Amino acid sequence: MQKNITDVTGFKVRGCHIGIKSKRRDLALIFSEVPASAAAVYTQNKVQAHPIKLTKKHLENKTAQAIIVTSGNANACNGPKGMQGAKKAAIVLATELDISVDDVIVAATGVIGEPFPTDKVVKAIRKNVSVLSDRKIAGDMVANAIMTTDTFQKEGFSSFKIGKKKVNMAGIAKGSGMIHPNMATMLCFIVSDVNIDPDLLQDALSESVKRTFNMITVDGDTSTNDMVSVMANGLAGNERITEKDEEYELFQRKLEDLLRHLAKAIVSDGEGATKFVTYTVTNARSEEEGRKVAKTIANSNLVRTALFGRDPNWGRIIAAVGRSGVDIDPDKIDIYLGSSKNMMKVAENGNRLDFDRKRIKLMLKSSQLCVLVKLNQGEKEATAWGCDFSYEYVRINAEYHT
Amino acid sequence: MQKNITDVTGFKVRGCHIGIKSKRRDLALIFSEVPASAAAVYTQNKVQAHPIKLTKKHLENKTAQAIIVTSGNANACNGPKGMQGAKKAAIVLATELDISVDDVIVAATGVIGEPFPTDKVVKAIRKNVSVLSDRKIAGDMVANAIMTTDTFQKEGFSSFKIGKKKVNMAGIAKGSGMIHPNMATMLCFIVSDVNIDPDLLQDALSESVKRTFNMITVDGDTSTNDMVSVMANGLAGNERITEKDEEYELFQRKLEDLLRHLAKAIVSDGEGATKFVTYTVTNARSEEEGRKVAKTIANSNLVRTALFGRDPNWGRIIAAVGRSGVDIDPDKIDIYLGSSKNMMKVAENGNRLDFDRKRIKLMLKSSQLCVLVKLNQGEKEATAWGCDFSYEYVRINAEYHT
Repeated sequence: MQKNITDVTGFKVRGCHIGIKSKRRDLALIFSEVPASAAAVYTQNKVQAHPIKLTKKHLENKTAQAIIVTSGNANACNGPKGMQGAKKAAIVLATELDISVDDVIVAATGVIGEPFPTDKVVKAIRKNVSVLSDRKIAGDMVANAIMTTDTFQKEGFSSFKIGKKKVNMAGIAKGSGMIHPNMATMLCFIVSDVNIDPDLLQDALSESVKRTFNMITVDGDTSTNDMVSVMANGLAGNERITEKDEEYELFQRKLEDLLRHLAKAIVSDGEGATKFVTYTVTNARSEEEGRKVAKTIANSNLVRTALFGRDPNWGRIIAAVGRSGVDIDPDKIDIYLGSSKNMMKVAENGNRLDFDRKRIKLMLKSSQLCVLVKLNQGEKEATAWGCDFSYEYVRINAEYHT
Repeated sequence: MQKNITDVTGFKVRGCHIGIKSKRRDLALIFSEVPASAAAVYTQNKVQAHPIKLTKKHLENKTAQAIIVTSGNANACNGPKGMQGAKKAAIVLATELDISVDDVIVAATGVIGEPFPTDKVVKAIRKNVSVLSDRKIAGDMVANAIMTTDTFQKEGFSSFKIGKKKVNMAGIAKGSGMIHPNMATMLCFIVSDVNIDPDLLQDALSESVKRTFNMITVDGDTSTNDMVSVMANGLAGNERITEKDEEYELFQRKLEDLLRHLAKAIVSDGEGATKFVTYTVTNARSEEEGRKVAKTIANSNLVRTALFGRDPNWGRIIAAVGRSGVDIDPDKIDIYLGSSKNMMKVAENGNRLDFDRKRIKLMLKSSQLCVLVKLNQGEKEATAWGCDFSYEYVRINAEYHT
């Protein structure tokens, strides 16, 4: 059986059903036996759910020891009662675990503007803290409990050596684009037993998110509840990472790998997606410009419907590049299309090429597509991940009623 | 019969079928008997069609006398041959009309990267210049000839007095979102017999476009071929408008009214649209911030699918406001939803309200919807227009093959 979050030293978890949702699991608890260095990144949306606001305050001390996630209710736009509910949950969890209330990370995902069932949650916390567990099955259940309309669990694990010590790191994530209206949230929780300074942990996280979670797109909408947090409790026993040396670099790379794995899993579960698409932009003047171009293409409804229809419609791709806000020279752009195994050049120097239409249409039948845009203006590159755009997206998002 | 472009003094037109498209009209010619003050705005896409590049050069002298539009072929991304084709068309038209080649506006709409049928176009120009006409039926045909997948013609006319002289102004437009892949273009040609300095004409146009054409959205994609141009030949005989006085203000307002009328017609014809939606943002700190917020909501796939599904899902609206890039205070936002006749408050101070769900669902059955967002941070307001998002959009854009 694959390793999971319970294989990281010093973490116990619980995932269960408490009745926010009608049948599925809807409460997740994660607990570190000792206070951990903590870091997080949050949604850039100006409208932020109450748990996000509270967690930001709690993490000012860069330390956390527990996470509570409720699923089925976003606890967003709920006024003073919403904030009271989030605080109450944190206080009760802290009391039950005998930890500082500032060391609780609170997260939620679900419908916006639905009253938060504070009493139900408080009761459930009291009942479930005693059954926190480090058995593998508990890890499985906690990954399951943060799902909303996800069709599969998103988990990852890695271990590597820092100095002579084996370090473990695991993560769980949820999100399937905005498959279910108002249940848009992307959540990701990483735990590790590495010993690291919290400021460096934050740097490693921010650096990694830039190239992973921030490079996936399902429909360009940003939730009020998005959060990626990481806790590192130091129980691996490595010498504390306190500067940006080789060991920091190794940890950052491993963290980025894990986040990339989870981010790609989210896109694969995108609403109504029939194809997973990798958008690579090379020879950009800067990584940031490359990212901007890649994301604009990945977000284009026209590009995405064309890929759903297996149409090598590169005109839509170059039009998206042109409106990305990056100062590109259109006459230098080469475009390649295809599957993850075979690519074909379809445009050169910004202009049409006679390519084998029949062959490329066959290539576009693959469920793993690649779009490669060479800007030919510099040395940098970036990658975004997305999915195609099917009838299912409209059905899911129009037929659902609040 | 309604007045059209042929009711503006000194303009003759021709719209006909020359075989770029299989059956429908595909060539439009507009001619002013005398050189006219000319102004234009163009797509902001960095990838620009050859006709756009050529027209920009031609309008450096701020004068135009003729317009040629081909429909069915965008003449974009066609390399040196594409530019040669655009130039050839301008030269031949200028020769036939005995005007300066710099005074020809060239526009095109259709598939990107498809070789431009230069010979066919040249032959057609030679044949059709002699039948330019100011009969009403010709005005009808020219409005028809610029259509691609539009389901109806977009025309407008107005007349008003500048001093003691009656001034006429007419416009034709095309665009139905990106209903047909690669046929995304929004084109609009305004002609008037007003006498005005070309720099003021450009100012009036830029000012008007900001609040009209730039405030409509069907799917957030920007074409490589968009253009709005205006020609004013002075034959109304009014005293030339040479400064920003009352008469300039009147002309600018009338121009803005005409552009708004045409812009709204384009949105009404949006691909797969079942509802026309007006998004009003009030009490913004600046008009620009209001516009940014209004456009972000209008562009949200999630808001648009909710409206298609008649769901009063204000959580999606406030989430769109929050990610608009404008520094808003979410706790001040009020949201109203409804038809153009009845609105209901659904959120107050950024938070949920208990509203009559049944009644609002009835209101949302209307084909003319309104979304009103009060930011309560200032005095300015802005309006955007859009349409809902139906299965048809995906069908149209996925089933079409290049």
